[in-house]
Amino acid sequence: MHMTFDFSSVARAGLPAPAQRFGGHPPYNFVGGNNAEEMVPVDALRAAADRVLAREGASLGMYNLHSGPQGHLPLREWLSGKLKRYAGMDCPADDIMLTSGSLQAMDLINEVLLAPGDTVLIEAANYGGVFPRLARRQATVVPIAVDGEGMRMDALEDALKRLAANGVRPKCIYTIPTVQNPTGTILPLDRRERMMELAREYDTAVFEDECYADLVWSGERPPALAAMDPDGRVVHIGTFSKTIAPALRVGYIAAPWSMMSRILSVKHDAGSGALEQMVLAEYLPDHFDAHLMAMNAHLEDKLDNLIAALDENFGTSVHYTKPPGGIFLWVRMPDGVDTDRLTAVAGQAGIAVNPGSEWSLEDDRTRWIRICFANPPKDAITEGVAKLAEVCHAEFGVPEVSANRRL
Amino acid sequence: MHMTFDFSSVARAGLPAPAQRFGGHPPYNFVGGNNAEEMVPVDALRAAADRVLAREGASLGMYNLHSGPQGHLPLREWLSGKLKRYAGMDCPADDIMLTSGSLQAMDLINEVLLAPGDTVLIEAANYGGVFPRLARRQATVVPIAVDGEGMRMDALEDALKRLAANGVRPKCIYTIPTVQNPTGTILPLDRRERMMELAREYDTAVFEDECYADLVWSGERPPALAAMDPDGRVVHIGTFSKTIAPALRVGYIAAPWSMMSRILSVKHDAGSGALEQMVLAEYLPDHFDAHLMAMNAHLEDKLDNLIAALDENFGTSVHYTKPPGGIFLWVRMPDGVDTDRLTAVAGQAGIAVNPGSEWSLEDDRTRWIRICFANPPKDAITEGVAKLAEVCHAEFGVPEVSANRRL
Repeated sequence: MHMTFDFSSVARAGLPAPAQRFGGHPPYNFVGGNNAEEMVPVDALRAAADRVLAREGASLGMYNLHSGPQGHLPLREWLSGKLKRYAGMDCPADDIMLTSGSLQAMDLINEVLLAPGDTVLIEAANYGGVFPRLARRQATVVPIAVDGEGMRMDALEDALKRLAANGVRPKCIYTIPTVQNPTGTILPLDRRERMMELAREYDTAVFEDECYADLVWSGERPPALAAMDPDGRVVHIGTFSKTIAPALRVGYIAAPWSMMSRILSVKHDAGSGALEQMVLAEYLPDHFDAHLMAMNAHLEDKLDNLIAALDENFGTSVHYTKPPGGIFLWVRMPDGVDTDRLTAVAGQAGIAVNPGSEWSLEDDRTRWIRICFANPPKDAITEGVAKLAEVCHAEFGVPEVSANRRL
Repeated sequence: MHMTFDFSSVARAGLPAPAQRFGGHPPYNFVGGNNAEEMVPVDALRAAADRVLAREGASLGMYNLHSGPQGHLPLREWLSGKLKRYAGMDCPADDIMLTSGSLQAMDLINEVLLAPGDTVLIEAANYGGVFPRLARRQATVVPIAVDGEGMRMDALEDALKRLAANGVRPKCIYTIPTVQNPTGTILPLDRRERMMELAREYDTAVFEDECYADLVWSGERPPALAAMDPDGRVVHIGTFSKTIAPALRVGYIAAPWSMMSRILSVKHDAGSGALEQMVLAEYLPDHFDAHLMAMNAHLEDKLDNLIAALDENFGTSVHYTKPPGGIFLWVRMPDGVDTDRLTAVAGQAGIAVNPGSEWSLEDDRTRWIRICFANPPKDAITEGVAKLAEVCHAEFGVPEVSANRRL
């Protein structure tokens, strides 16, 4: 006879609630940064893996291969050129660190910058993973209003002025300027220039998150903030999760040495996964540009499919702006719909969407949902949106008409 | 004209010193858990990568493939069987989580257990990465003396008794029972039974780190503590870094759900690298046992080479016990040698070894060095030890005789 030990008795105070067992993905899965599985470039990755393992596989016996703690040098060198071509950045391989996804990048940067009580300015509608991360570091979050062109510079200036008047120097402006999450906007060049002016005037750092920046349908985008930064006050992150495959977990940080040397001092993981780094370094030079064009065409087609399904099933009762890129659509639901409740009942019906309350601090956040469209097959998008309309009608009486049927 | 921004002005207080630029590995590199590059099973990994990518590569489009946050299910299923065969554990795949190396496993477990001031008992000579990790969590560390059979149970009992008398319930006993780092000892069965009795008597958890446990020359080892744990008080970690390749960054945690559900709640990285998990799941079933036997024979041969070099160059002035497994030798240097100074001067001569002061809390720690022998080629081991003897003689006058020459 024995007593079962309960680890709760030794767990520290203040932990999040224990997790639930993973129960599989719902049939209509419109959440998460998952990508189009049909677009993973499997054959080219196979060929790259085979070549690079044959040539360099033995180096897996060394932590970080032979490149040191910033990660596989050939991949950093390719990135240096890519950041120049795509984002206008002059960033040598020595100022790049490879990370386990851009989430590790974000965690490392926050760990360097943020002590409890430190202030961060962020877009008021934001990536849902940002809010708990900043809460865990006990940061003071100042939300800045967004509009159809991203962060509003008048609101940013007001906030910086007010903070300065109170003697507060914020640690950074955290921004997703290119394909903002969840609104999908691209910050225009004049706002980028203004943001950098304000960062200089108030002497704060800029934390630029470009995790979606390659997914722009037109292929045209303004230069990165890190390309408009003669002072070296921008720390810039990106990822291959959205362009190649999220499960690879390869992201990166581009930062001047005064920041990189600090980030290195808090990275204690003996390096991020090197097999992916090797395979990507082999795959990317010959394939990235063409793959990205095909990926963007494919994603825009899925987005158009989603929009057609929304129009058919919700008509004019919902509002959205077709984004210029990305993998998600930010949708304002009909009057009278509470999206926390909608998300809950939709979840019971096998439809997962993100409620606005987890992705925004704006006053009207419980009117919004985020719908991720990259992963579900097109017929699942069509069916899922129709079912969402049924669920929404049953719970809230709207929409009244769906697919030309009264509900 | 512009001023360069200094991120030090926004970095939080209390950070470690900024890192130095990576300058490459020294010619005689006897530090780090790097493995024998010539033993990375490149061809079998190539074949596994090709097969599994062809069959399942598209699933890289999903975070965590389709297996949820504990990681790739086929690898967890193989591990479940492996832990039974090698360590006597009954651990279903549902109680296993894949991590980014065993370091992430360690960090997650410490994050669940340790608030500032919490008490942890550890072997007094220990993995060098443990001390800063426990310091960052502001834990109270109680070192327990070790001998030629690992942690001393009389010392453990004394410590637990003393803590209980002071009203302190430690959070856990952290132990590396099988191929202890740095001493290389294997805790015998009777001590394992006694440790579990004491853990039960004082109602504390046991954190078992088996990262080196597969590297036993004889192939024979006692069961894991997690196999002697009817209460479910052991959280167990391991890795493929030592058996396959460290740069893969694949480790794992085996833990009952009362612990696993807590660990999941603090793992915010959207999953560990999945390509390695897929490739390992494909490679291991057909190859692991034979590869491990070959790896152990190879490592023991390198160890014998190191020992021959030590005997030739240091004679009886150094003391060590040939370990039954692992990748390091723990060596007591001659009288009068301060290993902090030795390590510094050896480093200038291109020879890297670990000073005892970073790997032990024992009183005589500055007499010891740790020499990792898995990565350097055999001739580099021979040359490096001869050079170390020269450096040691130049600095301390000992050894007096090296390779039959008076120094």
